[in-house]
Amino acid sequence: MTSNPGMSSHCCLWITLILLSASVATAHNLDDVEIPKLRMSRPEFLQDSASTVQASVAKDFVTFFYNQTLDHFNYRPESYTAFNQRYVVNSKYWGGSDSLAPIFAFLGAEAPIDGDIANAGFLTDNAPKFGALLVYIEHRFYGESIPYGMTLDKAIGDADTRGYFSSAQALADYAETLIYLKQKLKAKHSPIIVFGGSYGGMLASWFRLKYPHVALGALASSAPILYFDDIVPQDAYFSVVAKGFLESSSSCHQTIRRSWKEIDRVASEPHGLTKLSKTFKTCSPLQSSSELKKYLKFLYASAAQYNDPSTQPMKLMCDAINGASPGVGLLRKIFAGLVAISGNLTCYVNSPASGTFAQTLLGWSWQTCSEMVIPIGITRNTMFPPKPFNLNSFSNACKSKFGVAPRPHWVTTYFGGHDIKLILQRFASNIIFSNGLQDPYSSGGVLKNISSTVVAIYTTKGSHTLDILGAKESDPDWLVEQRKTEVEIMKRWLATYYADLRASRN
Amino acid sequence: MTSNPGMSSHCCLWITLILLSASVATAHNLDDVEIPKLRMSRPEFLQDSASTVQASVAKDFVTFFYNQTLDHFNYRPESYTAFNQRYVVNSKYWGGSDSLAPIFAFLGAEAPIDGDIANAGFLTDNAPKFGALLVYIEHRFYGESIPYGMTLDKAIGDADTRGYFSSAQALADYAETLIYLKQKLKAKHSPIIVFGGSYGGMLASWFRLKYPHVALGALASSAPILYFDDIVPQDAYFSVVAKGFLESSSSCHQTIRRSWKEIDRVASEPHGLTKLSKTFKTCSPLQSSSELKKYLKFLYASAAQYNDPSTQPMKLMCDAINGASPGVGLLRKIFAGLVAISGNLTCYVNSPASGTFAQTLLGWSWQTCSEMVIPIGITRNTMFPPKPFNLNSFSNACKSKFGVAPRPHWVTTYFGGHDIKLILQRFASNIIFSNGLQDPYSSGGVLKNISSTVVAIYTTKGSHTLDILGAKESDPDWLVEQRKTEVEIMKRWLATYYADLRASRN
Repeated sequence: MTSNPGMSSHCCLWITLILLSASVATAHNLDDVEIPKLRMSRPEFLQDSASTVQASVAKDFVTFFYNQTLDHFNYRPESYTAFNQRYVVNSKYWGGSDSLAPIFAFLGAEAPIDGDIANAGFLTDNAPKFGALLVYIEHRFYGESIPYGMTLDKAIGDADTRGYFSSAQALADYAETLIYLKQKLKAKHSPIIVFGGSYGGMLASWFRLKYPHVALGALASSAPILYFDDIVPQDAYFSVVAKGFLESSSSCHQTIRRSWKEIDRVASEPHGLTKLSKTFKTCSPLQSSSELKKYLKFLYASAAQYNDPSTQPMKLMCDAINGASPGVGLLRKIFAGLVAISGNLTCYVNSPASGTFAQTLLGWSWQTCSEMVIPIGITRNTMFPPKPFNLNSFSNACKSKFGVAPRPHWVTTYFGGHDIKLILQRFASNIIFSNGLQDPYSSGGVLKNISSTVVAIYTTKGSHTLDILGAKESDPDWLVEQRKTEVEIMKRWLATYYADLRASRN
Repeated sequence: MTSNPGMSSHCCLWITLILLSASVATAHNLDDVEIPKLRMSRPEFLQDSASTVQASVAKDFVTFFYNQTLDHFNYRPESYTAFNQRYVVNSKYWGGSDSLAPIFAFLGAEAPIDGDIANAGFLTDNAPKFGALLVYIEHRFYGESIPYGMTLDKAIGDADTRGYFSSAQALADYAETLIYLKQKLKAKHSPIIVFGGSYGGMLASWFRLKYPHVALGALASSAPILYFDDIVPQDAYFSVVAKGFLESSSSCHQTIRRSWKEIDRVASEPHGLTKLSKTFKTCSPLQSSSELKKYLKFLYASAAQYNDPSTQPMKLMCDAINGASPGVGLLRKIFAGLVAISGNLTCYVNSPASGTFAQTLLGWSWQTCSEMVIPIGITRNTMFPPKPFNLNSFSNACKSKFGVAPRPHWVTTYFGGHDIKLILQRFASNIIFSNGLQDPYSSGGVLKNISSTVVAIYTTKGSHTLDILGAKESDPDWLVEQRKTEVEIMKRWLATYYADLRASRN
């Protein structure tokens, strides 16, 4: 038991993410698969420190390690190897097991758990009124929860070791840890609600589906569980990005739309790449125009995905793009937009990656190459030039990088997704799928109520996982209302549960 | 594609099962863990040929093989190794995909699938009225579905290979095979109902819980899903056996109860084991009195478990025990009971194992030693001498035999079971838990309705998996009624599904 040291840690260097994404790619074109990252944490330049849990409450968080099974579904001798899985408990608000007070369990995703503790203010904000124990469990292979005590580099580098890195294993980890925790707390009948955002939101909803005996309900924030196979069109994600920019400013949208050809035109000139490198003040000379285009594309995507009301990155970019002196060229305008949301840096575009984010990027590249195959592509000429997602190329690139091909149908085989209303309206209960429609990933989310207790709570103006961030003074009414609705729904789950429990004892 | 050759195969040499159970045990006492086998198929001496699917319809069954993934939850290169999984299709009665006619999928258990095709007459009996396609899928590691094309002996003998032999993998196999089959048949919206008996019944209910997007409902016949951990008392099984014999005949019950000491007494005399061997006409000389006692105990257990109305083995035994000449000794009476249900054989008790049953026994010994830890024991002096189940001894024996200890809590971790009504009354739907209360395994079954669509359908006089055997002229009314109720429930599932499907298309 050690006090948790991670409260002040930062994560999410979005810019370096994009860069590293390029650097880990291989000549076999994994680089070309431009799937936006699926994370709750804001890129650093889009973070609002007011929304993170303050370091002053860090002392309430206590770190533990659970002796976790390496492979839950296999009985080879190697599968029995245990590893330390980190989980962090905050019992300050807990009403205790005697009063059957609930447990809020935050399911870690593709990053060390520290960032979630800092960012998922919804839990700390609401724990007092629920008398809830808070527990945050780190996802295997991230942070301090890597099998064999390896570094992630080493674990991912080993073909056998990375084999244990899968979502089904992670969910079983959470089940074991939570069952153990309840035993330890002698809290057999304290109901557990699981929380997660983005990939973690998918895990939360899947956890309720697969382990209803462990979790009473799930708040799955911005969980694009339908962005698999052919359930939603591959264009869905970037259509929302384009729509966001168009609504933000049609001239801005036009400028961006026209910029791609201009970049290519300049690049094709003598010393074109040098000119582009200069215009965009790149940290190192550009190797290709696509390096720049890819970076910009991800910047627009992240501005849309994390278009929080407090930071409004899309407006920030468009104001700068539109506000640039009429005389400057098209690319200077784009650069002004880039600077507007990046802040004043010594250089841009291809700065080296650093910190825990490299870990996220490396881990997620394996996860997308094994099972989390999210087919985002662009087939039509919109704000972005076409770049279709091609499963064959993607598979080949993964195979070339990791030796094994992805299993693109596994997620829908194990978790479902097709005809979700038809399937789940008479099966399952107590899941909130929350979304903000400005978030491009909402296009793969559940946006219609499935039943009276499997519900879609979305806001038109919300961004990625906005609802489970901490409340702020400046929050708009629609966000306050969304969170309030979620709290009311969870209260109903609990009231029904306690009534059922009493009935079962009579 | 080959026509199915297995229709006339027999299985279930109960006597040899018991014997083999002794022979595979180690000096470390696995032998002493007397857990009755969990099978749908009757011991050969209790089979009624009228209840099996006739060989004349064998031509309607066509065998296929699916290229199955070795490990669904792990991405090591080895996990990608595929193996042939056998499944058998009968499309004679199918209404076809255009009419969205249903698919009845029988989930194989711990035996080659041939026996299930022959025994699960409920499917062939009812397929015509449902217009149902029938598919029977063999459980991995049994029959012709063994990874690496190995024999089971070899597969179980290899510590790595047997590691892939688990229930979660088997369920994922069924999901993949059924999804594939529906694609092949272009029958995306044909609803699937899964069936299984005994261990296969557990698989059927678990399949509906884990893969509701693949199976619309499950008929889980005699599935003791609550006989794990400490959910039901370890005495439950043999209490039902004792109750059955007591109700059959209290003098018979008394005779059996008194026989154990008598066996020990004789065994302790000079040449006592030789005397016992002679009295019971054993196939080879007894090595200990416990060899005989264990055999008899399993014989009583099987008589109770498979106390079908057509064969009535408990009555058969008790009539013989009670009807023996008053002058003969206690053990002659017991022997008369043994002969009554075994038939006239050249020898008894310890005949050598043969056929596919050795496979079942070997496979199931691994399954119980890895995850299917069913703690059946006797702590009180009833009709049987006490023989408590001791988890530590069991674990040690398994470890000694297989190198790894069982995971006795895994089944409840993954599938649940504690507080089942509390958990599932507002989660899950469309499961029939059918039981016959004469079956000792019914003590670990679900005997109360959990919700309006997760229901318990039991009969007071029924035996193990009786309802999914084929209908017979001689069937008592309560059995006809039970099956009729099950059919009506499944019709309602389908009607609701078709209505939901129509609504989803409007």
